[in-house]
Amino acid sequence: MIEIIELNNNSYLMEKLTNRTQFEYKEVNQVVEDIIEEVKNKQDQAVRYYTEKFDSVSIDDFLVGEREIKQAFKSICPKLKSDLERARDNILLYHKEQLTESYTITKENATLSQRVRPIEKVGIYVPGGSASYPSTVLMNAIPAKLAGVSERIMITPPSSDGTIKDSILVAASLAGVTKIYKIGGAQGIAALAYGTETIPKVSKIVGPGNIYVAMAKKKVSGYVGIDMVAGPSEILIIADETANPDYVAADLMSQAEHDPLAAAILVTDSNELALKVQASLNRQVETLERTDIIKQSLRDYGAIVVTKNITEAVDLANEIAPEHLELLTKDPFTLSSDIVNAGAIFIGEYTPEPVGDYFAGPNHTLPTSGTAKFSSPLSVTDFIKKTSVIYYDRQTLVDAKDSIIRIARDEGLTAHANAIEIRFRNELE
Amino acid sequence: MIEIIELNNNSYLMEKLTNRTQFEYKEVNQVVEDIIEEVKNKQDQAVRYYTEKFDSVSIDDFLVGEREIKQAFKSICPKLKSDLERARDNILLYHKEQLTESYTITKENATLSQRVRPIEKVGIYVPGGSASYPSTVLMNAIPAKLAGVSERIMITPPSSDGTIKDSILVAASLAGVTKIYKIGGAQGIAALAYGTETIPKVSKIVGPGNIYVAMAKKKVSGYVGIDMVAGPSEILIIADETANPDYVAADLMSQAEHDPLAAAILVTDSNELALKVQASLNRQVETLERTDIIKQSLRDYGAIVVTKNITEAVDLANEIAPEHLELLTKDPFTLSSDIVNAGAIFIGEYTPEPVGDYFAGPNHTLPTSGTAKFSSPLSVTDFIKKTSVIYYDRQTLVDAKDSIIRIARDEGLTAHANAIEIRFRNELE
Repeated sequence: MIEIIELNNNSYLMEKLTNRTQFEYKEVNQVVEDIIEEVKNKQDQAVRYYTEKFDSVSIDDFLVGEREIKQAFKSICPKLKSDLERARDNILLYHKEQLTESYTITKENATLSQRVRPIEKVGIYVPGGSASYPSTVLMNAIPAKLAGVSERIMITPPSSDGTIKDSILVAASLAGVTKIYKIGGAQGIAALAYGTETIPKVSKIVGPGNIYVAMAKKKVSGYVGIDMVAGPSEILIIADETANPDYVAADLMSQAEHDPLAAAILVTDSNELALKVQASLNRQVETLERTDIIKQSLRDYGAIVVTKNITEAVDLANEIAPEHLELLTKDPFTLSSDIVNAGAIFIGEYTPEPVGDYFAGPNHTLPTSGTAKFSSPLSVTDFIKKTSVIYYDRQTLVDAKDSIIRIARDEGLTAHANAIEIRFRNELE
Repeated sequence: MIEIIELNNNSYLMEKLTNRTQFEYKEVNQVVEDIIEEVKNKQDQAVRYYTEKFDSVSIDDFLVGEREIKQAFKSICPKLKSDLERARDNILLYHKEQLTESYTITKENATLSQRVRPIEKVGIYVPGGSASYPSTVLMNAIPAKLAGVSERIMITPPSSDGTIKDSILVAASLAGVTKIYKIGGAQGIAALAYGTETIPKVSKIVGPGNIYVAMAKKKVSGYVGIDMVAGPSEILIIADETANPDYVAADLMSQAEHDPLAAAILVTDSNELALKVQASLNRQVETLERTDIIKQSLRDYGAIVVTKNITEAVDLANEIAPEHLELLTKDPFTLSSDIVNAGAIFIGEYTPEPVGDYFAGPNHTLPTSGTAKFSSPLSVTDFIKKTSVIYYDRQTLVDAKDSIIRIARDEGLTAHANAIEIRFRNELE
């Protein structure tokens, strides 16, 4: 089911991982373009049409009412509700450290500021069907609220009976979502980007989705902001002979179950561990529910890489820059400081990756496909924007003017020079 | 040359501005795709070929040597050199406030960190020819250096005699660029994204460029990070009857001279000022060098909008979210706090926009085309990335496990639940 490869086959592994995200979706492309055009032109009418077509339900009022939310609080398992509250509190605690302050520098009679303001309106996409996760709601809505975004608008596709899962509605309420609409797919993204009679136009859209949603986000990106176009999920585990092979196998499978395109990779300097993990995978997979997805994902994109030592393992991890990285080694804390590129690092045997997915506090929206080399987990800073503010008094400009004029002239931009000169022309004459 | 319009024609203005950035460049698209493919496959050979083709020069060694840089310091006008040093010091002073610190939260025996690390290698694109600006070098390289990026690689197309402008080389040296290569265009972007025998592969590419460079950046985006795909430049000036019409006109033209697609807009509650600015534009434009570009830009994308009061002017500015916003009113400081969406705000009559382009300290790479609603000036934070680090000890996981398992099961992800359960299975049995 899963291959064991030597590190010198490393380029083979890299190719496998890279190809994973380079699929062409020409048909999807055209469908999504048409949907966006239709929603831009026909607004609610188009959204209603596509909701009937794709979600097989006719929705009169897209807006979720107070009554539906109250009903969800009544219906939800009380323990699950308090689990979501605990998760919310942890997420709040971790993310509130990310608030960015404005700053001002005063230099004689000049003042320079970087002013931080929340984005005014944000759209949060939450998938429906089998990938309808309350944790998605918490992880996207809480940082937006902390940033001070005033309208936090969630959209999610309804079930064919027109309802939304209780845990999704409860999570939205706990996380401070201001409005929920029953709309999904590319039509939902288009509605948020361009606005309709019902759906407010937002300035930024965040949240995961299927290929239609991802393509639609990519297409409206630039016109509105987006968080990222996420690729399939990944885990890389660095483990040595001290690791428990059953834990390693279980953790690999917890990523593999997401998607046949998910990648689960163990890198170890222990040949013995490699064999034990392989055996444990074969044993455990049969006891799980999403067996077929796990088998397919481990076969196509899984690997156990055996290295000469842990240093080689760290180098490989830094090259791959995985979304999730677990360290199951003798001294994982020390090792963690050698990790340069990763979305999130999970340290030691009692921090399996689901701790981060749901509960610990850090965001679970993480850079995939090696983008951890240059991008970051979703955070409060994704929901703010900065403006520079510059004030010079007359004397400050007098002191600076010759330098500014000379640089402008060197750049051949004489109207720039003129904008300075005209303020002193009478004195020059 | 420039129209005066009433605010009720506002949708006409918005359309004008929006259309500005929606050009289709199908031919460019294919050319750029071909160039990227060629550079990916043939590396230096392809770069050399395109440099001969587009820059009309055959380059043996792309790398700029120490000797060329020393020569530039000898040749440059000493005053210009010290102007660039003053600008550098101001940029350093302003940007060093943007350094982001890592943080750690400890909760009983769990620790959660957001770890900040610099991106390892960054490419800085600097245009050649008539748009070859030393200020571009300073504004892009200084934040990268402050962030701690270890390789800060600049590329810029050579003149047809194989040289690079003195002020560009001097600015690069002052700003701490680590390597300079004589390569431009889409081939340069491709070389930075994929690497060649000579050019190191980088993780992020920043800097402005022509349509070929912009399209190439867009295409490699996601594989590497990019700063933004900038649209044409904009200025919006809010002025009342206290403003000097000659200053307003000069400042409008300082943006208009960039590009026939640049937009320069005055919004005022004073009909008298509107007429005076119009007259001053007609007078001043003839005294400048880039007269034709200015006339074209003011005709196609310029406007003087007359509003009933300053509140209407502020609302329009927030809707347009301009790259540059000047406030030339009685009480510009108070007014500035009503501005929600803008790249940079310039306050009062001694802060014309070129003060920010070259000298004051804040970055001149600013969000264009209304993207100030959700994005920010280039800053030190564009050159760092964050990693979450999570550690739970056994007891912390014991306390959390039931919640995590319940949420995982609600989401239908049983392999996630299994990764927790397996750690306690022996005790459960």
